[in-house]
Amino acid sequence: MPAKINRQWILAKRPRERVEASQFEWRESPVPEPREGEMLVRNLWSLLHPTQVLFLNGDSGDLSVPLGTPVRGAGAGRVVASKLPGFAPGDLLEGWFGWEDYTLSNGHGPGRDDPPPTKLPPDLPAQHALGAFGITGMAAYFGVLDIGKPAPGETFVVDSAAGGVGSIAGQIAQIRGCRVVGIVSGRERRDWLAHELGWAGVIDRQSEDVGARLDALCPDGIDIYFDNTGLVPLLDLALVRLRSHGRVVLCGGTSVYCLEALPPGPAHYFDLILKEGRMEGIYGAMHEARFPEARAALAAWMREGRLKPLEDVAVGLENAPAAFARVFEGKNRGKQLLKIAETETE
Amino acid sequence: MPAKINRQWILAKRPRERVEASQFEWRESPVPEPREGEMLVRNLWSLLHPTQVLFLNGDSGDLSVPLGTPVRGAGAGRVVASKLPGFAPGDLLEGWFGWEDYTLSNGHGPGRDDPPPTKLPPDLPAQHALGAFGITGMAAYFGVLDIGKPAPGETFVVDSAAGGVGSIAGQIAQIRGCRVVGIVSGRERRDWLAHELGWAGVIDRQSEDVGARLDALCPDGIDIYFDNTGLVPLLDLALVRLRSHGRVVLCGGTSVYCLEALPPGPAHYFDLILKEGRMEGIYGAMHEARFPEARAALAAWMREGRLKPLEDVAVGLENAPAAFARVFEGKNRGKQLLKIAETETE
Repeated sequence: MPAKINRQWILAKRPRERVEASQFEWRESPVPEPREGEMLVRNLWSLLHPTQVLFLNGDSGDLSVPLGTPVRGAGAGRVVASKLPGFAPGDLLEGWFGWEDYTLSNGHGPGRDDPPPTKLPPDLPAQHALGAFGITGMAAYFGVLDIGKPAPGETFVVDSAAGGVGSIAGQIAQIRGCRVVGIVSGRERRDWLAHELGWAGVIDRQSEDVGARLDALCPDGIDIYFDNTGLVPLLDLALVRLRSHGRVVLCGGTSVYCLEALPPGPAHYFDLILKEGRMEGIYGAMHEARFPEARAALAAWMREGRLKPLEDVAVGLENAPAAFARVFEGKNRGKQLLKIAETETE
Repeated sequence: MPAKINRQWILAKRPRERVEASQFEWRESPVPEPREGEMLVRNLWSLLHPTQVLFLNGDSGDLSVPLGTPVRGAGAGRVVASKLPGFAPGDLLEGWFGWEDYTLSNGHGPGRDDPPPTKLPPDLPAQHALGAFGITGMAAYFGVLDIGKPAPGETFVVDSAAGGVGSIAGQIAQIRGCRVVGIVSGRERRDWLAHELGWAGVIDRQSEDVGARLDALCPDGIDIYFDNTGLVPLLDLALVRLRSHGRVVLCGGTSVYCLEALPPGPAHYFDLILKEGRMEGIYGAMHEARFPEARAALAAWMREGRLKPLEDVAVGLENAPAAFARVFEGKNRGKQLLKIAETETE
């Protein structure tokens, strides 16, 4: 039997300023055989999440992807061969896999702080496991509920609202009785999101005056601002409109991950004093012990039709770099997933 | 009997960029007679607090001091004549009085949100009523305990550490078992504070490399940073050294109250994400309902010798503008008070 081919995307150049398809190199090599203590995973899905660029830029310690090696990131796959106790062929896993058909795993995460592959509940489609039930859904869940602490009738504003975290965050706030306003980039995306989710308002930050639109949509100010982009001018607009005891949830910064140095911060952080406002960071992975609680709640809302997973699926490993670059152009509609294969036999 | 003289400092010019004695004008006029519904207060003490400049700059709504009128601010005095039910000659009050010998009061604060004059507990020296037991002590108490939530063994860093808020804040953290490091400006002040309070360290931000000193004094990072100055470069130094789940208490900004526009904010606010850090404002006046609780705790610590009120007393109404300007030059050693008179008969 001829050796099967493992198609791979290799990190050829660190993205730094911006992500471009030319930073990745296509390679084909034989599928490796697991040695003692290893298992071979057939990758089915890859999550193209903005924070992945931190690992590609080498700024993430143990998690950093060395140049010349396959791109790593969150993914889902099925075990096809195992010499690792506790894992058997057929197991569906979520873990730190990558942009390739097959990944060898020793059952540990790549770094000290990275979670090892975990088995997915059988009733959870692998697609949602990376989407609403994955790390971004977790960040949205704990960010909104633990940090934002929304109360019925409060005004909740979320940027990057059509993205994986933002769309879930806004919907959770809506479920908790908030008036939700989203900020996106692009008119078409704005109209699409407004149609999909029926929020109080959606603002296009490219074609609209965000401050004026916030004034119109949030006449009594903002109780909770959920920051996904790290865009300081947006954050400042929110801070000046923050109500007394308002909250800012800092959840990510697609706008800054590729920068060599951080831009100046929000001048109006100072407004937090007289308002007794709170600005707090959320890092989903820190809450692993409570993932089951969060997944159960999200699944229940989904079954009740109150939570709509917005997922943008690119099909085919060959499209990984282009689909990843789209995320940074703000073109994805919901969480950007890459479907590598339908089943492990494909 | 000839009319008594009321010596007053009149606001002649808004400070804006910096506070200078030339912005105030000396005036002498007859002491007014209280009409029905008014009382006359003999001012004994005035609190020269940095935030007072906000009122002088006219940026504070109802609390703003109109040009050409006596300077207003927190003070303590004794009722000498009253046609106001509930207040009688001899009552010792804390309230919104000012830089003059006598103030007429109708028993309300000057503005909607400003607390009315309140009677001081008879066992509380008027001096401490404006100091540790006054609004700055309250800001320190609630800022440290409610926002900072210090735990034994944590590292607590406070800037403007020789000031009214900072010195109390640091001591409360110390009482709660923290290692406390203070930042002050000036070597002499640093040495004085180190001698007075016996903290783990005191840094002079004028002559020392604050980052290097923080690294040396806080090798495991900072759990709580108590920000009194609004100096963004200091805040950034603290944010990059903040430990996981660290807290930043935003309590004031002597450095920015006089500026027309806010300077750029802290770039490293972004570090709050991966650290799940929290940055939160405290505005003491909002906690009025709990002042008795705070005063009782502070008084108990003071009696036990664990809390040392650092108060810098300037004597004589004529010295008000110069003493106030000193606060902005960072020359005061502890809370800056002005003693206007020893007793109401003076």
